Amino acid sequence: MKHYKPKGRLEAAAYINGVLKGDRVLLSRAITIIESNLESDKILAKEIIQAILPHAGNSIRIGITGVPGVGKSTFIEAFGKYLITQGKRVAILSIDPSSQRSKGSILGDKTRMEELSVMQEAYIRPSASGDTLGGVANKTGETMLLCEANGYDVVLIETVGVGQSETAVHGMTDFFLLLMLSGAGDELQGIKKGIMEMADMVVINKADGDNVRMSEMAKLQYQNALHIFPQSDSGWSPVVSTASAIKNIGISNVWDEVSKFKALVDENGYFNKNRNHQQIDWMYNNINEELKNLFYGSKNIKGHLSRLEKEIVSAKISPVKAAEIMIQQFKESF
Amino acid sequence: MKHYKPKGRLEAAAYINGVLKGDRVLLSRAITIIESNLESDKILAKEIIQAILPHAGNSIRIGITGVPGVGKSTFIEAFGKYLITQGKRVAILSIDPSSQRSKGSILGDKTRMEELSVMQEAYIRPSASGDTLGGVANKTGETMLLCEANGYDVVLIETVGVGQSETAVHGMTDFFLLLMLSGAGDELQGIKKGIMEMADMVVINKADGDNVRMSEMAKLQYQNALHIFPQSDSGWSPVVSTASAIKNIGISNVWDEVSKFKALVDENGYFNKNRNHQQIDWMYNNINEELKNLFYGSKNIKGHLSRLEKEIVSAKISPVKAAEIMIQQFKESF
Repeated sequence: MKHYKPKGRLEAAAYINGVLKGDRVLLSRAITIIESNLESDKILAKEIIQAILPHAGNSIRIGITGVPGVGKSTFIEAFGKYLITQGKRVAILSIDPSSQRSKGSILGDKTRMEELSVMQEAYIRPSASGDTLGGVANKTGETMLLCEANGYDVVLIETVGVGQSETAVHGMTDFFLLLMLSGAGDELQGIKKGIMEMADMVVINKADGDNVRMSEMAKLQYQNALHIFPQSDSGWSPVVSTASAIKNIGISNVWDEVSKFKALVDENGYFNKNRNHQQIDWMYNNINEELKNLFYGSKNIKGHLSRLEKEIVSAKISPVKAAEIMIQQFKESF
Repeated sequence: MKHYKPKGRLEAAAYINGVLKGDRVLLSRAITIIESNLESDKILAKEIIQAILPHAGNSIRIGITGVPGVGKSTFIEAFGKYLITQGKRVAILSIDPSSQRSKGSILGDKTRMEELSVMQEAYIRPSASGDTLGGVANKTGETMLLCEANGYDVVLIETVGVGQSETAVHGMTDFFLLLMLSGAGDELQGIKKGIMEMADMVVINKADGDNVRMSEMAKLQYQNALHIFPQSDSGWSPVVSTASAIKNIGISNVWDEVSKFKALVDENGYFNKNRNHQQIDWMYNNINEELKNLFYGSKNIKGHLSRLEKEIVSAKISPVKAAEIMIQQFKESF
């Protein structure tokens, strides 16, 4: 299995040239290699990424999150189509570690963004599958680089807004957009703590018909709330707006705000500083995750932890001492 | 140095019995051993902690944070004195990895809580010194256990509110109190993002004289803001109040809210569930920190990282590949 090479794989140069020339088919095939877990593909993927790296980075990267039901797909469809009218090429990726390719998320994505998915200027790629958030985030991050090298000006990365993946998306994007609904009640409870404070912009979606007044009230509430938050390092004050993706209202305004943000952070130097930090953090996140994999995958560790957890809870051993024992075991496993 | 044993150290049993009998002098001496970095003391400390462990945990642990200038010391002095009138014994600890014992933080603590520091029912211990947050947090956490075994009913753990230590305090306390000032302006910028969402209660301090109206307005603003936050797993909705620590106004109300919180989380089972999680997380935090120490302290790693950071920023190497190289180096160091 280890050195199995799938039929039809090209040389690295073919993918690299194809991606850099804006070839859409070769982009897709290159992404498939990035997502593959075969050893031969991993080697190929590294060569491709290494070559396209200097040509990546020329897009604005926008993270979009919101709970199921907030109208994320409809919003992205409307927003993506608007961006195309502005002469942009838009790539749409997602991070969702729970997704399973076999469960048909490709079909799902094509269905849920019907018009966008057939446009030449849009590229929609569903979430890579994988067991760990770190693994999926790596694949999405590298896919983003490929899309940029392929000529996409705007990369939208969406998450479901209820899991662990928002921090990962926030860590790989320039601008973080939170979709909400009016009626600050039950539906908010799906949003995890901490996400609100990441938002550069909150959009109250479904602000149409009978819902307009409620949405305007919600907008005020969020504005007041965000106002008392500590300011971001970017110097940008988060904005709140209303929109109706389905009626195509308030969509251009979102792009206006993104553009204002971009102008500000270009001017004050935050854009580049943040990008550099994000790239460096990407390395450290991988290192830290791999250290954990080494530890928790060690044969000397497995089986001890749940026993120690029980002993800690019943005050038989202190957490500090339990950790020391485990680290000692780990060292002895080498 | 390694096996040097300081003059005057007692056998473990003497400290253990002293702590369990409520002896204040032996409590202090036991904490000194916890805080010591001598090998002989570390062994002694482990024995002490192991023995007192089943007798710890019987307090309510309250984290208190706020930026410098918010009146934290005055608040803790007033709050501590109130708790003593309610028949409580109060231990006051702090986490501040930047503190240096030699810079006189003991003197500072005694000065800033003048009345409380001479009361028999209060025990004030400044932050342990140390280079890493994890190390300091371990010492503060174990000191907390000793104080509980010594009979303290309420443990207050304070942080400065501008660093990395709030998450550590939040992770070792039952109730998290954020002190703020009215005039939601510049002074807020010192509070780090994410802290607001940890708060079980926000107290607007210095609500006296000309400041009362502003403070009431701030209270409303915070109430509205916290209202739109996602609810905590505890089932508790964060409350906002005003207080003037210096005039002793609104202090008893803070304790009333803590008591209401405690009744709720005892009832719904969150109190024990959260304590168990915290203890287990304490082990994992130590493991993860020690893994990082192993890695970043490895001779094969030092010196490579800053070069790789530069190569990443200049797009010469991908972050994922850089991490792989470093992990490979690390494995070879064993």
